[in-house]
Amino acid sequence: MSDTGSNLTGAIEQWGRALGRDHVLVGQGDKDRYARSTSPSGGAEPGAVLLPESTEQVQQIVKIAAEHKTPVHPLSRGKNWGYGDASPPTDGQVIVDLARMNRIVEVNESLAYAVIEPGVSQGALAAYLAEHHPDLWLDCTGAGVDSSFVGNTLDRGFGHSRYADHFLTTCGMRVVMADGRVLETGFGHFPNAKAHRVYRYGVGPFLDGLFAQSNYGIVTQVGVWLMPRPESFCAYFFSGRNESDLEEIVTRLAPLRLKGYLQSALHIANDLRIFSSRARYPWELAGGATPLPEEARLTLRRRFGVGAWNGLGAIYGTPGSVKAMKRAVGEALRPFGVKFIDDGKLALARRLGRAFGAFGFGKRLTELVNLVEPVYGLLKGQPTNEPLAGMGWRVRGDGPPAAIDPLDAHAGIMWVSPMLPLSAQAAREVLDLIEPIYRRHRFEPLVTFTMITDRAMVCVTNISFDRREVEEAAAAKVCYDELVETLLANGYVPYRTGPGGYEKLSSHPSVFWDVAGEIKKTLDPGGIISPGRYIRE
Amino acid sequence: MSDTGSNLTGAIEQWGRALGRDHVLVGQGDKDRYARSTSPSGGAEPGAVLLPESTEQVQQIVKIAAEHKTPVHPLSRGKNWGYGDASPPTDGQVIVDLARMNRIVEVNESLAYAVIEPGVSQGALAAYLAEHHPDLWLDCTGAGVDSSFVGNTLDRGFGHSRYADHFLTTCGMRVVMADGRVLETGFGHFPNAKAHRVYRYGVGPFLDGLFAQSNYGIVTQVGVWLMPRPESFCAYFFSGRNESDLEEIVTRLAPLRLKGYLQSALHIANDLRIFSSRARYPWELAGGATPLPEEARLTLRRRFGVGAWNGLGAIYGTPGSVKAMKRAVGEALRPFGVKFIDDGKLALARRLGRAFGAFGFGKRLTELVNLVEPVYGLLKGQPTNEPLAGMGWRVRGDGPPAAIDPLDAHAGIMWVSPMLPLSAQAAREVLDLIEPIYRRHRFEPLVTFTMITDRAMVCVTNISFDRREVEEAAAAKVCYDELVETLLANGYVPYRTGPGGYEKLSSHPSVFWDVAGEIKKTLDPGGIISPGRYIRE
Repeated sequence: MSDTGSNLTGAIEQWGRALGRDHVLVGQGDKDRYARSTSPSGGAEPGAVLLPESTEQVQQIVKIAAEHKTPVHPLSRGKNWGYGDASPPTDGQVIVDLARMNRIVEVNESLAYAVIEPGVSQGALAAYLAEHHPDLWLDCTGAGVDSSFVGNTLDRGFGHSRYADHFLTTCGMRVVMADGRVLETGFGHFPNAKAHRVYRYGVGPFLDGLFAQSNYGIVTQVGVWLMPRPESFCAYFFSGRNESDLEEIVTRLAPLRLKGYLQSALHIANDLRIFSSRARYPWELAGGATPLPEEARLTLRRRFGVGAWNGLGAIYGTPGSVKAMKRAVGEALRPFGVKFIDDGKLALARRLGRAFGAFGFGKRLTELVNLVEPVYGLLKGQPTNEPLAGMGWRVRGDGPPAAIDPLDAHAGIMWVSPMLPLSAQAAREVLDLIEPIYRRHRFEPLVTFTMITDRAMVCVTNISFDRREVEEAAAAKVCYDELVETLLANGYVPYRTGPGGYEKLSSHPSVFWDVAGEIKKTLDPGGIISPGRYIRE
Repeated sequence: MSDTGSNLTGAIEQWGRALGRDHVLVGQGDKDRYARSTSPSGGAEPGAVLLPESTEQVQQIVKIAAEHKTPVHPLSRGKNWGYGDASPPTDGQVIVDLARMNRIVEVNESLAYAVIEPGVSQGALAAYLAEHHPDLWLDCTGAGVDSSFVGNTLDRGFGHSRYADHFLTTCGMRVVMADGRVLETGFGHFPNAKAHRVYRYGVGPFLDGLFAQSNYGIVTQVGVWLMPRPESFCAYFFSGRNESDLEEIVTRLAPLRLKGYLQSALHIANDLRIFSSRARYPWELAGGATPLPEEARLTLRRRFGVGAWNGLGAIYGTPGSVKAMKRAVGEALRPFGVKFIDDGKLALARRLGRAFGAFGFGKRLTELVNLVEPVYGLLKGQPTNEPLAGMGWRVRGDGPPAAIDPLDAHAGIMWVSPMLPLSAQAAREVLDLIEPIYRRHRFEPLVTFTMITDRAMVCVTNISFDRREVEEAAAAKVCYDELVETLLANGYVPYRTGPGGYEKLSSHPSVFWDVAGEIKKTLDPGGIISPGRYIRE
């Protein structure tokens, strides 16, 4: 990197003085560990890894980085699997791992918010709330207990409840700018501002949007809104037997979202998505073939008792309003066997399952409880590692899927997540675009449609492969490129991407990316923070 | 303005060629008309007024402005009364009045959104929807039928329904940058993007926040989300007899908002706010004194049948869920005489009032209907000029208040609107701060508390004065400064301000304003667009 004038050695020495040598990792083993990736080509290798414990140390880090022209790449806890993992956008960038900044700075019970640092995992926050504020729920993603809440938010991830849109439910950011200044957004820069954590916009321009999916600064603290436990809660599950049921399901549910009746995110997963969370690829059943033959697919549907489409949502309210919404959902989803489950029903099923464990009926009930419980908990702010199992779908080997670190398991994952309007036609069109591409490259389209706003669905699909299988990994890369390019060409733009997608997003010249680049040059003229991440300089 | 190198004459000539001479107003009469103001000191005088009809013309305008170093100030329809009216931040800036850009570009019925230009008034949009899409409602502010929806949004105004937060319910902006480039935000810059009007963030940084309460560009088109008519609708009204009831009302309603039960904005107005919408200042009753003597205040309360605090909200849902929420609201507000009104009840009252018009009972009923109907309509997306009458509170003269242009009426208005957390204590603290100041300067604190998010209330107060009364106007200015400074010193920051407040907001140096200024320098290096508006260069 001598051509850029970077002086990594000098920077490392100064960082060592600032953070303590133990918190500057330069060994090959450490660098290799951070470079591990779920991507086919492997992650970029960091120049070093820094482990600050405070905003002040992050300020020192960027100042030293600027002085030595050595770019740094911040990460919250590095669990961005399938979207770049913990890797920097390019080789040599020095990782700033914020995992040690894991303080829950404040929880305000009556106004229902927390102030947290990027190192706080959703598991840690959920556990803290359960112990000290049991009536406050957070929104959880399926990314497991160990992933960062702030990290997910800054990638504009989403969860399951009425606070599913994480960016929308943060309030006030502390950001270290490239020159070491500390920016407080919203009302946070006013002394003693009383509404800092309750009203996002502040006064004047609303800057928070600049710091998600970008590289304009390093966020070291955010306010996060929490949900006071509602008087009544109910989850609902439904499934459509046929592939073509999707359109009908979307058409029937869309008005309930648009009218504001359903406030939670609503997830509709295809059979393959569910299989992947319960088993590895059935090589034997498939006769060694990929992609999964239709017959094997039908067999698995029967084996796991799932439909072609399988939905999940939640209702929050008073006993009366929950009852009314159950009626509305029940009517809308009548053809799709909707089932409502609440705390009482779940406890009863658990008890009956245990009591009648010796009978087939009891065993099936216990199986059902085991199946439902993790997702049920997710809807109430209890994170789980269960969905992580799905990442191992194509990983060769016998064992049952488990809550695993996909990096330990050699799992290959590439997410492709186009955003689409909440309409049956768009959902079908996206499937018609992606299915042949998946098939041609001998992968299965694992698909979840999530109604994330009143009008939009994100279609979250991923290529699942075994990183050790050279041909499969190579096919995954080609498949990914084709999927993203085809979707983009048809106006279905991903809501989020990993390093493999950054260039594709800005391949079409636009004032948008020009302006984004100009803001980058202003806020980070030296290109010190995550160069290449989303924004092209 | 010769010292800045501005060449207004040359610019005017070129603008005339670009827009047609009829659309470049340079006469003193026109300039005076635009300089009219509700502020004590009068508005800044524009150098000229331009009336473009398209985004292309706006592009030409800024290019010519840059060439001749002549700053321009965009306005949507210029009805920003009490927050700067149609005046530019400083003398000489050339107004770009977008009123002719009044196209409703698209209405999507199934996804419930419209795409509109800044010249579209809320009255025009409501009328268009009523005719062509009667099942879609927009959120309306109290600013009257003739005010711009986009203009309100770009000042982050709010209305009454579950889409009360206007900025939050816009999706995708078209912005003319200072150099004439056209920026499409969100997904709008991707060719044929399917989710452009349904998902706000797009991919990469979310830039929309830059273009509200700022001067970074000229917005010429936005997507606006609309509400599909719910199956059931119900308004509720309540009132607290005593000044001290406010705390109890806030305490009882806060959990219902926090738990997501109440989705609409919730307005709680004091007696003075209501008086002002029904009558002018009662000089006789007050014995010519200001501020309003306590005894006169109590007399007016009895005369108009209002409490010290008077609340208004709406419930949207299915018949069952509305019933359940009525129960929850009814329980919470039991001590405050909550009344529920729906279409059926209102029609019945109207009929009975007519039938028994000869009796006192019938007359009172008709009065009640006349009173309730306008605000009831507001909650269903029907704008009204009724609240405008309140602006004339201190205007001398006999006539009854009417739906007036406050500029024609010589009405003086200065809004002071601090944001506060949704807590009884904060509400009381704000009142305790502002009431003595209002009293000292012989004004009444006209107050509305609006629960605008699940956790925040804005306290909208205004100094009402007669612009022709020199002493009163002078006192208004001093009162305003003292109010804003006192609130700021106590951490209650206004959510929005007029030119009188810009400098106060940035008087405390902060990285926030520095960064905002740096972005301004990048996006508008020549300082062509509204210099001085919110952002200090």
